[in-house]
Amino acid sequence: MSLDDLCINTLRMLAIDGVQKADSGHPGAPMGLAPLAYALFTRHLRHNPADPTWPNRDRFVLSNGHASMLLYGALHLSGYDVTMDDLKAFRQWGSRTPGHPEHGHTPGVETTTGPLGQGLANAVGMALAEAQLAASFNKDGHAIVDHHTFFICGDGCLMEGISHEAASFAGHFRLGKLIGFYDDNRISIDGPTTITFTDDPVKRFEAYGWQVLHIHEVNDQSEIDRAVATARAETARPTLVVTRTHIGYGSPNRQDTSRAHGEPLGEAEVALVKQTLGWPWTDSFVVPRDALDHWRLARERGAGLHEQWRRDLIAYARAHPDDAKEFGRRMQGVLPGGWQKAIPAFTAENGTMATRAASGIVVNAIAAKVPELFGGSADLAGSNLTTIKDAPRFSPEHPAGRNIAFGVREHGMGAMLNGLALHGGVVPYGGTFLVFSDYMRPAIRLAALMGIRVIYVFTHDSIGLGEDGPTHQPIEHLTALRCIPNLTVVRPADAAETAEAWRFAVQHTSGPVALVLTRQKVPFISDPRRAPASELAKGGYVLVECESGEPDVVLMASGSEVGIAVQASRRLHDEDNRQVRVVSMASHELFLAQPAAYRDSVLPPGIPRVGLEAAHPMSWDRFLGPRDVMLGIERFGASAPSQRIYDEFGLTADHVVSSARSLIG
Amino acid sequence: MSLDDLCINTLRMLAIDGVQKADSGHPGAPMGLAPLAYALFTRHLRHNPADPTWPNRDRFVLSNGHASMLLYGALHLSGYDVTMDDLKAFRQWGSRTPGHPEHGHTPGVETTTGPLGQGLANAVGMALAEAQLAASFNKDGHAIVDHHTFFICGDGCLMEGISHEAASFAGHFRLGKLIGFYDDNRISIDGPTTITFTDDPVKRFEAYGWQVLHIHEVNDQSEIDRAVATARAETARPTLVVTRTHIGYGSPNRQDTSRAHGEPLGEAEVALVKQTLGWPWTDSFVVPRDALDHWRLARERGAGLHEQWRRDLIAYARAHPDDAKEFGRRMQGVLPGGWQKAIPAFTAENGTMATRAASGIVVNAIAAKVPELFGGSADLAGSNLTTIKDAPRFSPEHPAGRNIAFGVREHGMGAMLNGLALHGGVVPYGGTFLVFSDYMRPAIRLAALMGIRVIYVFTHDSIGLGEDGPTHQPIEHLTALRCIPNLTVVRPADAAETAEAWRFAVQHTSGPVALVLTRQKVPFISDPRRAPASELAKGGYVLVECESGEPDVVLMASGSEVGIAVQASRRLHDEDNRQVRVVSMASHELFLAQPAAYRDSVLPPGIPRVGLEAAHPMSWDRFLGPRDVMLGIERFGASAPSQRIYDEFGLTADHVVSSARSLIG
Repeated sequence: MSLDDLCINTLRMLAIDGVQKADSGHPGAPMGLAPLAYALFTRHLRHNPADPTWPNRDRFVLSNGHASMLLYGALHLSGYDVTMDDLKAFRQWGSRTPGHPEHGHTPGVETTTGPLGQGLANAVGMALAEAQLAASFNKDGHAIVDHHTFFICGDGCLMEGISHEAASFAGHFRLGKLIGFYDDNRISIDGPTTITFTDDPVKRFEAYGWQVLHIHEVNDQSEIDRAVATARAETARPTLVVTRTHIGYGSPNRQDTSRAHGEPLGEAEVALVKQTLGWPWTDSFVVPRDALDHWRLARERGAGLHEQWRRDLIAYARAHPDDAKEFGRRMQGVLPGGWQKAIPAFTAENGTMATRAASGIVVNAIAAKVPELFGGSADLAGSNLTTIKDAPRFSPEHPAGRNIAFGVREHGMGAMLNGLALHGGVVPYGGTFLVFSDYMRPAIRLAALMGIRVIYVFTHDSIGLGEDGPTHQPIEHLTALRCIPNLTVVRPADAAETAEAWRFAVQHTSGPVALVLTRQKVPFISDPRRAPASELAKGGYVLVECESGEPDVVLMASGSEVGIAVQASRRLHDEDNRQVRVVSMASHELFLAQPAAYRDSVLPPGIPRVGLEAAHPMSWDRFLGPRDVMLGIERFGASAPSQRIYDEFGLTADHVVSSARSLIG
Repeated sequence: MSLDDLCINTLRMLAIDGVQKADSGHPGAPMGLAPLAYALFTRHLRHNPADPTWPNRDRFVLSNGHASMLLYGALHLSGYDVTMDDLKAFRQWGSRTPGHPEHGHTPGVETTTGPLGQGLANAVGMALAEAQLAASFNKDGHAIVDHHTFFICGDGCLMEGISHEAASFAGHFRLGKLIGFYDDNRISIDGPTTITFTDDPVKRFEAYGWQVLHIHEVNDQSEIDRAVATARAETARPTLVVTRTHIGYGSPNRQDTSRAHGEPLGEAEVALVKQTLGWPWTDSFVVPRDALDHWRLARERGAGLHEQWRRDLIAYARAHPDDAKEFGRRMQGVLPGGWQKAIPAFTAENGTMATRAASGIVVNAIAAKVPELFGGSADLAGSNLTTIKDAPRFSPEHPAGRNIAFGVREHGMGAMLNGLALHGGVVPYGGTFLVFSDYMRPAIRLAALMGIRVIYVFTHDSIGLGEDGPTHQPIEHLTALRCIPNLTVVRPADAAETAEAWRFAVQHTSGPVALVLTRQKVPFISDPRRAPASELAKGGYVLVECESGEPDVVLMASGSEVGIAVQASRRLHDEDNRQVRVVSMASHELFLAQPAAYRDSVLPPGIPRVGLEAAHPMSWDRFLGPRDVMLGIERFGASAPSQRIYDEFGLTADHVVSSARSLIG
């Protein structure tokens, strides 16, 4: 067996053995793709197994994440901190080798994949980050940001709609350092792909403006090398390499069948594979010394590449000391000193203002001090008010542009934002209407699972958007977002809280933040305001306090309904001489993270509560006792002017007042 | 002005005036598309304005739903029951002319559109229904199912990923009676489409196997006629007609700009449009008699077409009386007599069985008696167990096939299911893993909003799927689905409840039903079972009752956790001599729809409760008092064998027992 074949078969066998030991997993794709992974990890990827965080490394994304053993095996063999014990613990509790690759969990895993199509779109985001950072920092003779982003995807990724959104985006924006391999094994879970999927991938990707290449025989390393060379040579178009592989390669009874996809081969078939491939060892998890030595050259090569880059960076720093410092700061993810001074202080003099309008002002103020803020909207920039006004749109002509025209591609946007955040050096945000958060949920979920900083600007957040009607009016979305673990949802009540919401979002590095903002104008809550809007960091706080003693009733609301609650509190005071507290519950998650003593101080046990939110009330149940009242919406919305819908749905000060009266007699 | 131009401008002006009066809406697309709508509604669509439910009508879908005034105007002018008063009440409370078209709300509106891309995919579903029904019912010389499905879409629809999924599906399955028009106006909300979208639509759709045609000048009716004729002549491929239009056509200051898209023109510009187009009337909502007379010929033409079809149907009935009866039954949406006898009665002898396995048995049993059951899976048929075993896959070779290979296209599947349901004659279902319900949420929401019968088969419904890990383990999804208005979520506890869940789903015609099923085996709840599984129709019921008197504690659970609750109840009885009730809460929605007296009889106020579900607990809060206990999951899952995760997450009989003990002392 040639050294190449020995190295390739070593990876194949690790994948087979890992799946077999776990008695669970996907052996087929790794068996087919092992030659490609071997070529990439040993010859083409500019990576340093000793430092998976090297900023200028090539990124590698396995979009068909179920082939995880391919990645784990390649990481182990290349010398990443993925041990043989880790491989043997594949898919076991607490292991570093979960069923699908998880970023932050395993060194060298650039993103969490498994839900199909996400990785491909993450890779587009990474390539976008690279392009923008390169344009922002590189100087003549100093290319300190200069790496490629590689991905492998399967037919499942290419069937998913998100692949269209991301590939169309990448082609339009000429992300020439993006190189993808389509694992064209012609087998899907339910049978040959020909039962449902006969797209012409060449025409399709050419339609997007990609270069399309072929590898007809993945077991020929020279074909892979030629494809990578051609892909690297093309700088103005992303490249897709249609790579003909055979799922379950080497398995006499399962190759080229769906059965190779998602179940262990079984001991007998494993033995046959070894025989077929001329693998002389009968033990499992065998790594021949020659193979390991050859794979591990990646460490030496990587150390050299990394060292050369360090020298380049020193030369850059000598020539451009300020830029070098700034580059270092950004890649370390440290915000610029004093950035918070930029956040505007809104006052009553700003008058009534939609929270989306306040957000637009805040974005621009922060962007002036935080150059890494990089984002845009899914073709609703004028409505989401996400545009950084003194910066151009990102484009091939303006690659340092800071506004991203994501297009009507919410799902792609979500996954590209993840890729931007994972790349580092930028703080990404993306806007759409709240109702269309549904289009991007799978990407939001992965941001939350990875614990990365992504900011969503969700405007038009209720029936308050009015005439566009029920198709555009979110009802269930606040609850549906609040139940995603590690996502923080913030719905500010006025301009001042909106500024604080952005302050929180930019600082919060351990998970995504959804800013939920009104289309319609809302009053500035000024008088009598008990606590500054900065209390929003606690999620819920006493915004308006009663004059003395304990409140008779607590009114709770978020966003645009806080103003209604304040109106109601005034009436209960003036007309009924009641002591009324108003709590702005801008973020359930942040409030629930406070100590119980604080929560009880805001919502004193035993005091009746009336809650109000123009949304499905489900997420408020946790704040309600059996006798409390929640005014929400449990049906779809309606097309009419905003105030009419509020009236018809009973989301009025009148209704709050009557509800409070019924509670406190 | 020619009669054609008069008719076209009448439609343009109604759209302009409707938006102007509402002071809200989208004038630009209707102004550009009016010639196309005129050609379709007066010459090409085989429809009968007097009977919008005629089964063999051509379907027309406005996928760019924001152009709603185009549709409302065309419906009014064609003689549908959409009055001038309706047009004048555009976007007002209670009107039949909401901001975006809503099926079931306005006669002649075939589907609810607005969220981009959905309509296009609905149209694919309608064309699929037509193809399958035609193959099932038509006989030599008797084509009683023989209509086209037309759609118009915009660049937004084509940017959305769902357009890829649906178009790829339609091309693969050779849905030759699908004819789409791409409103190529080159303007998106944020500017010219060239800022982010430069796909070559011809190459793209040819890659999918579509015929692609062009209309270079939409104002030339003969170009439209030629395109439609060529599209109709092609029976083996769907057709996309790239139709060059001008957004805001006729508006001197707004044509071909983003400003024409989504705001009223303003009185001054409206006057200029009238001048530019040679429209002599200054009043708004003017319909010249000649124009109306010509448009209204659609009624006569439609009556004739409809009458001819009635005669065809009579001839068909004479030749094939049984088929005709069956056709009538199916198109009326009446289930076959005695179909419920097919539903299997599972007993303890069936042993432990995954609820997905039970579902697979039930699907097949029902399918044998209910030929309209038509569905499949998004490339997980072997896991979702959705296959009707004695029927072939739907394909060009087997157009009467009843199994749909949706491919890895969850979102497209969701919207195609909507199209199937809207077409009528079939009862559609589609399967994927519960976690991937996220990929199809926008389509689920529209099914719920429209109130149509669509059945989702969501398997692998919790951490119980085990090793695939957190990317595949739903946590928040039950809550996120339960908060969608008019969606019914059913999570059966065992095989018997699974049969009842299907019984409910097939009978429930006023909204979609999500069946939530386990990957792993669950015990059959047999002894001591107090009530038959048919009680599931009430959502929650007393499954295991205490021996006598009032219970000391009520255990509530759904699905796979019911068996754990039953175990715990036995231990509390045997070890602590406690009276324990177990409630199977299979469907929150159905339970909440019961009278309060019933709900109180199941969950007696004042009796402590312990709830258990392997999911985010948010949706259970409504059943919990301040001292009750809920065992759920508020973090993401983990990759490990299923039982280990249940143990680590505390979803065990031990934990239920200790929780109950802490409550009842």
